[in-house]
Amino acid sequence: MSETQPAEGLTIAVVGATGAVGRDLVATLERSALPVRELRLVAGRSSAGQTVDVGGRSHRVQVLSGEPGELPAFEGVQLAFLAVPPEVSVPLASALAEQGIMVVEIGGALAGRAPMVVPAVGIEALAEASRLRMASSPSAPTVVVATVVAALRDLVPESVSGTVLLSAGAAGRAGAEELSGQVVALFNQRQPPRRVFPTGLAFDLLPAVGTVPAADDDPLAGWSEAERRVAAEVATLVELPPPHIALSLAVAPLFSGVAASLRVALEADADLDEIRRRLEAGPTIRLAEPLAGPRRLVGRAGLYVGRLRKDPAGGAVHLWAMADNLRFAATGNAIAVATTLWREGML
Amino acid sequence: MSETQPAEGLTIAVVGATGAVGRDLVATLERSALPVRELRLVAGRSSAGQTVDVGGRSHRVQVLSGEPGELPAFEGVQLAFLAVPPEVSVPLASALAEQGIMVVEIGGALAGRAPMVVPAVGIEALAEASRLRMASSPSAPTVVVATVVAALRDLVPESVSGTVLLSAGAAGRAGAEELSGQVVALFNQRQPPRRVFPTGLAFDLLPAVGTVPAADDDPLAGWSEAERRVAAEVATLVELPPPHIALSLAVAPLFSGVAASLRVALEADADLDEIRRRLEAGPTIRLAEPLAGPRRLVGRAGLYVGRLRKDPAGGAVHLWAMADNLRFAATGNAIAVATTLWREGML
Repeated sequence: MSETQPAEGLTIAVVGATGAVGRDLVATLERSALPVRELRLVAGRSSAGQTVDVGGRSHRVQVLSGEPGELPAFEGVQLAFLAVPPEVSVPLASALAEQGIMVVEIGGALAGRAPMVVPAVGIEALAEASRLRMASSPSAPTVVVATVVAALRDLVPESVSGTVLLSAGAAGRAGAEELSGQVVALFNQRQPPRRVFPTGLAFDLLPAVGTVPAADDDPLAGWSEAERRVAAEVATLVELPPPHIALSLAVAPLFSGVAASLRVALEADADLDEIRRRLEAGPTIRLAEPLAGPRRLVGRAGLYVGRLRKDPAGGAVHLWAMADNLRFAATGNAIAVATTLWREGML
Repeated sequence: MSETQPAEGLTIAVVGATGAVGRDLVATLERSALPVRELRLVAGRSSAGQTVDVGGRSHRVQVLSGEPGELPAFEGVQLAFLAVPPEVSVPLASALAEQGIMVVEIGGALAGRAPMVVPAVGIEALAEASRLRMASSPSAPTVVVATVVAALRDLVPESVSGTVLLSAGAAGRAGAEELSGQVVALFNQRQPPRRVFPTGLAFDLLPAVGTVPAADDDPLAGWSEAERRVAAEVATLVELPPPHIALSLAVAPLFSGVAASLRVALEADADLDEIRRRLEAGPTIRLAEPLAGPRRLVGRAGLYVGRLRKDPAGGAVHLWAMADNLRFAATGNAIAVATTLWREGML
């Protein structure tokens, strides 16, 4: 089927089109290399009647309905992006893949069922994804860290440690709205809203993301589920043994973006100029000195890396990597997955 | 002179009494163990006519005037805290010390001229400080990191890496006011003020603090002056070779507080329970799970440590340390220095 469709263009569904990731995907798709013939915007019942603007035209959102196996919104669709919570994306992905629709799930909920793909890191997993009709685009911390480590591959990365700061927007629009509501409440001495985050995020740091399993004799005691997942995902993507990845995940009071302060131990001795050349050679990294924070990077598709420093004791490089978590990691990587599948004739 | 004064109480000067550190010091001093007979509040010309409340009573601020050598505000003073910029504190400290007044400088400007002291780390330097009549209480990142590393001393710390997040308040009240002004301006779509920070701090991260020397062949190329200073200070305090300390300093959009995400490599093998016991044994560390962010710690004197995790590859512990940078690091350490000098009969 890949022989003729590219010329005619693709019918593409975006599921979760009214969410933060879905909206960014819709805004970006028509400017991508993918030949979009028709965009089918799909969302849950709570979005019934809503419209989303695409290229100046207003598109009505179709409500996700029907049993898996009879999903009318997907008739004629070749490619479906899923930007919905795991409880929706996991069963829906299987149903769509069974109908031959290529599914690109955003956020990593399909990890374990479908290959994770970050094209900037490697495209070996794409053939298997195409065969299964499912690919998983991992969460922002995984995409950011794997992209940096993969760019340094020839210098033989041995271990990665550091801190990844997520923003309120990592919890979707509800997270960003809660931060905004908290700021307004604090400035007006009212009670700040707290639904998305366990404690107040405004002007504070949350040193844990999600659940931390109860302490036990497990060697990973204290590491949160999210930290374990990101370490395992990065290890899989860059083919490093997982014990050598130790990343602390925290939430900073930013509306959007992701910021990683990393130490990458390298077996090969390399000076800063060589490290710089390796980082720049990748398709998605932009070197920047001075490096801007995530708020200045809203709407940009690159991963901005700067503050490069060699470890004073040698054997490692320290750096900051910053990105718009939506445009770079969520939208950007999902579109890169789909574009590569299409270019390779695997759609 | 130490034989009789403790009973009578001390005449104490606070220089910079109208700044953020000075105000916190004044608010805390009378609740400290120091026997305060008289508080002399001193500030620069711009604070002329101001008053500061102490224990419900309003104290008039004396203006810092006169040549070094004739400083009328310091007649009869035994102990002077300096919470002023380096250009004021460095010459003033020498002049006061020459008159026999014991000077405790806050912020580290005297480092190199007077011993740095963090009593929770060790008090060996106090005798020399007493002889010179000058002690330097280092900046918050140094106090935080040195306190953690010293508590793990018996487990033989080998290296420390990580990220220390400062807040707007690290630049004094002007920094906090600028962040506040930026937030209000952004919510009202006006131009945000930018004087203290090089770019906007509201809802963003600044991945560098202060000046980064121009790149050269120096093995420390890329490390900022502040990062170099903190590494050298921690190394001196805990007697680790400086090359083994690699700390990234950044600014987060918080009004106050300091947060450090650290990896401490330990030569001795220890389980989490043992690491916990060591940390708790120190005088200033409080273990906390779940660990609150700095906003919840305003006004608290302890260093809050949590999210303890062993490195998955072994040989290191990861943790977060959080504190009110004023109450814990600036005020708390300076008062601890003075209290220890007094208890040891060195005032």
